[in-house]
Amino acid sequence: MSLPRIAVTMGDPAGIGPEVCLDLLADSGIAAQCTPIVLGDRAILERCAEATGKPAPQTIISVEEVPRASQPSLLEVPSISLDQFEPGTVNPATGKAGYDYVAKAIDLALAGVVQGVATGPINKEALSSAGIPHPGHTEIFAERTKAERACMMLTSDVLTCSFVTAHVGYHEVPGLLSVERIVEVIELTREAMRRIRGKEPKIVVCGLNPHAGEHGLFGNQEEERIILPAIEEQRAAGANLEGPLPPDTAFLERRRAETDAFVCMYHDQGHIPLKALAFDKAINTTLGLPIVRTSVDHGTALDIAWQGKANSQSLIEAVQLAAKLA
Amino acid sequence: MSLPRIAVTMGDPAGIGPEVCLDLLADSGIAAQCTPIVLGDRAILERCAEATGKPAPQTIISVEEVPRASQPSLLEVPSISLDQFEPGTVNPATGKAGYDYVAKAIDLALAGVVQGVATGPINKEALSSAGIPHPGHTEIFAERTKAERACMMLTSDVLTCSFVTAHVGYHEVPGLLSVERIVEVIELTREAMRRIRGKEPKIVVCGLNPHAGEHGLFGNQEEERIILPAIEEQRAAGANLEGPLPPDTAFLERRRAETDAFVCMYHDQGHIPLKALAFDKAINTTLGLPIVRTSVDHGTALDIAWQGKANSQSLIEAVQLAAKLA
Repeated sequence: MSLPRIAVTMGDPAGIGPEVCLDLLADSGIAAQCTPIVLGDRAILERCAEATGKPAPQTIISVEEVPRASQPSLLEVPSISLDQFEPGTVNPATGKAGYDYVAKAIDLALAGVVQGVATGPINKEALSSAGIPHPGHTEIFAERTKAERACMMLTSDVLTCSFVTAHVGYHEVPGLLSVERIVEVIELTREAMRRIRGKEPKIVVCGLNPHAGEHGLFGNQEEERIILPAIEEQRAAGANLEGPLPPDTAFLERRRAETDAFVCMYHDQGHIPLKALAFDKAINTTLGLPIVRTSVDHGTALDIAWQGKANSQSLIEAVQLAAKLA
Repeated sequence: MSLPRIAVTMGDPAGIGPEVCLDLLADSGIAAQCTPIVLGDRAILERCAEATGKPAPQTIISVEEVPRASQPSLLEVPSISLDQFEPGTVNPATGKAGYDYVAKAIDLALAGVVQGVATGPINKEALSSAGIPHPGHTEIFAERTKAERACMMLTSDVLTCSFVTAHVGYHEVPGLLSVERIVEVIELTREAMRRIRGKEPKIVVCGLNPHAGEHGLFGNQEEERIILPAIEEQRAAGANLEGPLPPDTAFLERRRAETDAFVCMYHDQGHIPLKALAFDKAINTTLGLPIVRTSVDHGTALDIAWQGKANSQSLIEAVQLAAKLA
């Protein structure tokens, strides 16, 4: 039986994506578990290899060779040339390149020639300056795969969180909460965790307000009006749920130990404990898509890009998780 | 030289306040560092001692004896009788009692007969049902001591956070942010940390939006319009500040190690990492008051109240910190 092929996007060329992809291609451990196929510009990777002292890509394949690929390879996706950008800077051309690699990877997955996609880091500002209307990967995948519902989930050994809202301003969150959306995210989280754990998971649903509103004392009763009805609907459908819990006591050590996943109302509610407890160890996956998609949980780290300092552990784990889910 | 006298309020009678006060009165370690004077109803403490098997208060003093108190004592503040409430339940009478102990403790501190106040947990719902207009301790202390400015700070070995806003609904936060208020909280935090650390502290100021707005991509540019001008004003006044930082990467382990305090925009931004990393070990103090005030960082825990299960470590540390600041 052949190993699953996982498309790996190089990420923003100006960030740490190219160097962590070079590490990945040279990693014999990952090559024993799956066949990573990096999508990116060849000249960029070769120049980055020179700059960082890492090995350049050895096996370059064409798109026709993807279905037969059996060792870590580079599939060239020409999008940007070396004179169009400086490493470590935000640039419309690198934003567009980051998008091009992702679009190609999604198409390969939809065509069934790769069994999953793991994405390197893109820069949201560069993406926006290139005129790409999506704030991030999750939204690109949701649109291009025509997913009817999707949500972000971050998973690590110590904590797994899924998100009702993610890349929106702080003030927009209350207006984006609805019973339907919360039910959707609970359902997607249950499905994913049943695949990962092999049983109905124990899920904690966080409140929105301090102390989960303290019975209506703080906030607009979002807990009573929106979150609790969603919990009750999902309980009636067999879910093992606790909540809405005060966000600050939801993530206590003893509760983490007995909880498979946390449903969070907004980006920082889950990202703060995840990064405080498991920085560089969390993997981002998009639930609800017709294809498997995972991602590193770090940014482009422009301040250290092309210096050979980046840690490739997160990309390696993202590729491993994609292979597991595939 | 006599030890500092610290008034300790019993907290909501229906919660775990009475039993942790019994532990405190019997703690010989704390008695060597300061003289705790518990303010509460005698009959409640005696009944709680019976229920939990803990020793009842041994030394009962009158208000006239407070200035000469030299051993752990109970100062009776009659407010509620045993037939007015059930342990473990929310009740207007217990809310009023919790408030009465605090009001008396503040008056003793303002009169200079105690050198600080450490508060046991009150129940915000019980307080509200008793018609007390303040959402919590911080606001009671600010009003009764006529403080012109005040903020909550939580401190522990791993993390210290102060708060620009605290006990308000999620949606109210953006409207409560102003350059003046953020400058005030940075100043109060600098003053407190200079007392604790003996040097100008390194302070991180968090953003409001995911990724600190990613240069205006998310939110209403609160980072550029409000937070950054406050940081620049305080830098010009000699502060050692970093920010506005993305809230999720602000609390990484390596940044915690080099940071003395974090200025947080809202309750859960700081409470989530504090409780995830240092549950039951953080002490709450109100900065900007004319008197010293610290508090436990847990609630009334009605579900385990009067069962002898409560951990008194947080109250003991709150009393120790009050003695240190006194």
